[in-house]
Amino acid sequence: MDKITLSHGSGGVLTQELISKIFLKVFKNPYLDALDDAAIFALSKHHYALTTDSFVVDPIIFPGGDIGKLAVCGTVNDLASCAAEPKFLTAGFILEEGLSFDILNKIVVSMSRQAKAAGVEIVTGDTKVVPRGKVDKIFINTTGVGMVKKRLSSSCIRPGDKILINGCIAQHGLSILLKRQNFSYSVAIKSDCNPLWGIVKLLLNANIDIRFMRDPTRGGVSSAMNEIATACRYSFLLQDSQIPVDNSCRHLGEILGLELLDIANEGKMLFFVNPKDAHRALRIMRSHPCGKNAAMIGETLVEKKSRVYLKTAVGGLRVVGSPLGESLPRIC
Amino acid sequence: MDKITLSHGSGGVLTQELISKIFLKVFKNPYLDALDDAAIFALSKHHYALTTDSFVVDPIIFPGGDIGKLAVCGTVNDLASCAAEPKFLTAGFILEEGLSFDILNKIVVSMSRQAKAAGVEIVTGDTKVVPRGKVDKIFINTTGVGMVKKRLSSSCIRPGDKILINGCIAQHGLSILLKRQNFSYSVAIKSDCNPLWGIVKLLLNANIDIRFMRDPTRGGVSSAMNEIATACRYSFLLQDSQIPVDNSCRHLGEILGLELLDIANEGKMLFFVNPKDAHRALRIMRSHPCGKNAAMIGETLVEKKSRVYLKTAVGGLRVVGSPLGESLPRIC
Repeated sequence: MDKITLSHGSGGVLTQELISKIFLKVFKNPYLDALDDAAIFALSKHHYALTTDSFVVDPIIFPGGDIGKLAVCGTVNDLASCAAEPKFLTAGFILEEGLSFDILNKIVVSMSRQAKAAGVEIVTGDTKVVPRGKVDKIFINTTGVGMVKKRLSSSCIRPGDKILINGCIAQHGLSILLKRQNFSYSVAIKSDCNPLWGIVKLLLNANIDIRFMRDPTRGGVSSAMNEIATACRYSFLLQDSQIPVDNSCRHLGEILGLELLDIANEGKMLFFVNPKDAHRALRIMRSHPCGKNAAMIGETLVEKKSRVYLKTAVGGLRVVGSPLGESLPRIC
Repeated sequence: MDKITLSHGSGGVLTQELISKIFLKVFKNPYLDALDDAAIFALSKHHYALTTDSFVVDPIIFPGGDIGKLAVCGTVNDLASCAAEPKFLTAGFILEEGLSFDILNKIVVSMSRQAKAAGVEIVTGDTKVVPRGKVDKIFINTTGVGMVKKRLSSSCIRPGDKILINGCIAQHGLSILLKRQNFSYSVAIKSDCNPLWGIVKLLLNANIDIRFMRDPTRGGVSSAMNEIATACRYSFLLQDSQIPVDNSCRHLGEILGLELLDIANEGKMLFFVNPKDAHRALRIMRSHPCGKNAAMIGETLVEKKSRVYLKTAVGGLRVVGSPLGESLPRIC
């Protein structure tokens, strides 16, 4: 049998087989192996972060990643943005009848690899199978528990705080767009999908005074910056010339008339840092594989109008709004 | 605007509107109101249970419940089966473009009501919208964190342990079946969908020596009993005449030729109890609204063959297998 059938979701013998042959074999760890309805673990007295994300990306395999890698990185990065060390992940699969075991296995192996890279264990899961046509191939929910290493809040942001990003923007969204539309474009654009706990941990261990972090995923940098501005009340000034953009992404954006600030990232973090630590933070970020193109892209203003300004390369100033609608559905 | 559009999943302005007008308004609590990518909370030094479940039930509204009630009860009951007091829930929504706001709101209100009944807070969430036809109306993932009040394991089960259940079996599966097929059947069968932490807590507080619990959902009592038998190695003997079955369910099972032991429940728990406490446990269960028809349905044998036997009403003995395939997809 090389395809998922409805019986694999019945809770009976075939479900057990699917679990043992695909999930347990790859994810193997003592929590999961107990095969109970829940994973049980001891926690010390501490603050914890809990985050959940469902992944519905189309296509499920794209340059630089797949839905499994994305599902682990997305949740790990939400924890990292709270300065929380990823500890435990749950994985909930919704499979379409007829999905090939080969593809499922590839996705599961990819999840396992990313979980190892991020130091997180997949401790419990769930699998549902729905009839052909009732879901598009595979959706994955990951929920993560992390131990908070530092309490951050947008209310900690102060005027003068520098805004840093760990590399080029818009790669994830554009890679999905190219793949989905089968555009023939001279240069391949790879998704930046990557777990960011490693780089965040480096900064925390170096006692960089991070005030706040946010990963600019759906809605891109525009959406993330506007949400933060609304939450902390301050306005921000971004320097267009300082925002790292890969050349092929810049060209594609120009050809298609896309605002790259609105495009999703899956391996980027916006850091709001005490100005005294900003240059040191940049050096540390650039020492990490996920931060080679790290840059200081703006700062927090004294103005309390919750606005995001962009100083353009030619010296103009414009307000960056939150994208209203949907430029590209099913990006993550 | 009365229907979900793709823009509601974009991460932009309309996503914020959806979150504030539907989810925050109903789920309102300090964790969620922080609107961060994760909920942050303090935990004491303790053991915790983590469980996840995706709900894909069809139809999304059925006699006795809806997908929202089911999503909360299912996860609460998985925690309860680990003797874990439900503390926090996450909610991940995957919505089909075109879903009506009215229906979404109904489901969200239903989740909130059940969460209150179970004493659990919905502390963080996620919403994705996919194009029409790429998902069937709405899927919900709930992941739960609970504080373990007593460590239970199938390895604690001993020969002679009594097997109790808190009421009639097969109601959930049959109610879905009737509703989906638009069968006209003289009597309405309502799903037993209910949160079970209340009844479990009563038993724990009374120091009932519970060895193990399991909620017999997908695959029904047959599947749950067989899984437990495999895990603890002992065989079990069930008394057919003692298993509570509602008359209308019994008749429907006979008409359709369904094995009621294989049919899903969503408000039932199998309890493995030290025989000295079994009658006291039964009295306590019957004092709770979810346990009025509680019954002692069998016991653990000395035999270590991982078999489940059923003594039939006419005195025969047969082996109850785990259902192999899928009698009814999308039951939960």
